[in-house]
Amino acid sequence: MKIKDTHYRTIWPHEDGTSVEIIDQTQLPHLFVTAKLSNIDHAAAAIRTMMVRGAPLIGATAAYGIAFAMREDASDQALDAAHDTLLATRPTAVNLRWALSRMRDALRNRPRSNRADAARAEAALICDEDVETCRKIGEHGLKIFREVSAKKGKGPLNILTHCNAGWLACVDWGTALAPIYMAHDEGIELHIWVDETRPRNQGASLTAYELGSHGVPHAIIADNAGGHFMREGAVDFCIVGTDRVTANGDVANKIGTYLKALAAKDNDIPFYVALPSSTIDWTLNSGDAIPIEERAADEVTKMTGRLADGTLASVEISAPGSPAANPGFDVTPARLVTGFITERGYCAANAQGLRGLFPEE
Amino acid sequence: MKIKDTHYRTIWPHEDGTSVEIIDQTQLPHLFVTAKLSNIDHAAAAIRTMMVRGAPLIGATAAYGIAFAMREDASDQALDAAHDTLLATRPTAVNLRWALSRMRDALRNRPRSNRADAARAEAALICDEDVETCRKIGEHGLKIFREVSAKKGKGPLNILTHCNAGWLACVDWGTALAPIYMAHDEGIELHIWVDETRPRNQGASLTAYELGSHGVPHAIIADNAGGHFMREGAVDFCIVGTDRVTANGDVANKIGTYLKALAAKDNDIPFYVALPSSTIDWTLNSGDAIPIEERAADEVTKMTGRLADGTLASVEISAPGSPAANPGFDVTPARLVTGFITERGYCAANAQGLRGLFPEE
Repeated sequence: MKIKDTHYRTIWPHEDGTSVEIIDQTQLPHLFVTAKLSNIDHAAAAIRTMMVRGAPLIGATAAYGIAFAMREDASDQALDAAHDTLLATRPTAVNLRWALSRMRDALRNRPRSNRADAARAEAALICDEDVETCRKIGEHGLKIFREVSAKKGKGPLNILTHCNAGWLACVDWGTALAPIYMAHDEGIELHIWVDETRPRNQGASLTAYELGSHGVPHAIIADNAGGHFMREGAVDFCIVGTDRVTANGDVANKIGTYLKALAAKDNDIPFYVALPSSTIDWTLNSGDAIPIEERAADEVTKMTGRLADGTLASVEISAPGSPAANPGFDVTPARLVTGFITERGYCAANAQGLRGLFPEE
Repeated sequence: MKIKDTHYRTIWPHEDGTSVEIIDQTQLPHLFVTAKLSNIDHAAAAIRTMMVRGAPLIGATAAYGIAFAMREDASDQALDAAHDTLLATRPTAVNLRWALSRMRDALRNRPRSNRADAARAEAALICDEDVETCRKIGEHGLKIFREVSAKKGKGPLNILTHCNAGWLACVDWGTALAPIYMAHDEGIELHIWVDETRPRNQGASLTAYELGSHGVPHAIIADNAGGHFMREGAVDFCIVGTDRVTANGDVANKIGTYLKALAAKDNDIPFYVALPSSTIDWTLNSGDAIPIEERAADEVTKMTGRLADGTLASVEISAPGSPAANPGFDVTPARLVTGFITERGYCAANAQGLRGLFPEE
């Protein structure tokens, strides 16, 4: 996607032939800053501190992390150690495990002398495939938007989304936002309700930034407001991304997704989840088994933003001395999800639906 | 309630015999500052800018606003004008209308020479009655907490609340928090999940401040997190206040309440609403008829807090140029509410329940 007429991916090879560059997403929307990752510690830290975030992008970054490790030590032990180090950075998104397994499988039977180059090539391939996967998700979602928009007739299609499942969460395009960009580009009138997405504000800071850069009409709302707008008839469609879908169709996604799915159900509003198949955890049959990351309390009690003079500052917003709890994700049961949009098309949010699209799994 | 061993109400007569003092709640939890209100413009501004907020306290402040107006001009026209000016400050909470009607009814047939003193006395009576009403709400709620706690047996009773329905929202005690204080004081083990309550953070700033001052164990959570904790079995009970209950039992309360009521229903968790009868709007039979206040966008896009050196600063947190929408309240349908706790006891959340407690209405 473009930022001020320059096309960017969220991660791209550095010209030195070994490093990669990323957009430092902890600085958005205040500053557009890129950072260079050159070794596995950089990659692990970038994932852990959320310089990169979003399930597909975490996977892509971890893949390059393996490539960095292979450049320093291409032994089996080093491969396993790099795998484990990177896997430990974030527990909920399964794309991390998927990408790391794929890298290890691709490298294990190669001669050590070739592993570093092969790893870098495989990581690049994961990135390219992610772009193509997201493009396909966009096209399948676009078909649904065309139908819903035609059925609605007059006025913009009002779409609510939670967190950021845009191109910043992937390598390009995004998952939930891919069909939004495509629909906007072909002239379907849209208006996006952007959930702020406390405590890290990925909606207000990343999704709003993306949509604004692309010219898609939108408004930021407190996470509390979505149910009200649904009751008022101001939401036609909900679409979100996910960090892990279990084989039965349960959905782990950014904390608060479950509440919006409940409200959508209560108001008969379609609630779709867009995902690459790398986000499906075929090994689990219930969302209750997904580990939920517990994050630092100061993400709740502090907030960073721009002072009047444009400089950045962090302020404490809560009552002094009060503790906070900060689960990063919740699980939305399959019964609340209308359907999944994947690179192979869309399906019902249940085991049969998923197996129908991915019979080889 | 006490702040550092001094007992405070949220509004009290100034020793000059005409003014009142309030706690400026826009400064909490960062600074404890009191302010003096001496004329109707002060009173209207204090309500509009939320120096005072919370349905019962808005009513009490408006009552003193009438008294200020009578001191300057005790004519019928001045009475009507003061009534209308104050009524226009906030649209959703019905206690404002209730208090203003009560004041006008009490003054209309009095000689003008007596109106200013009578108004001040009536406003003081409204405050005293509110304290007693909240104390009774606390006692009735306490009975429910005793039962639920005994039924649970081991471990603290985990209670979730949204926004601030504590003593800061009333003259003293609070509505939803009154039984929490009483239960804590009699030794029932409690742990309160405090919804941050974006965009104005009344939970993180006021409820956490109150609970911390009183020593009640609690943790602030993002509004997004409540559903997750309910699914995890970490919430035994939900209790909130309200700004207006319609005769059929629908509940207008701080934006986001509806989402928590949906999650409570989905997880079979009791969801109670605590209110003085002055919050019941007997003239409406559906929550859909309640006017919902639309507030300024910068409540969503900006945040005020303490810098590292303790000074206060406001930061912009959203993507530059992105608009925001900010409805202040939502409506929770009666079907999602387990029951009402009032000064006369508790009842089912429906027309029969309310009429049973208040047959004279």
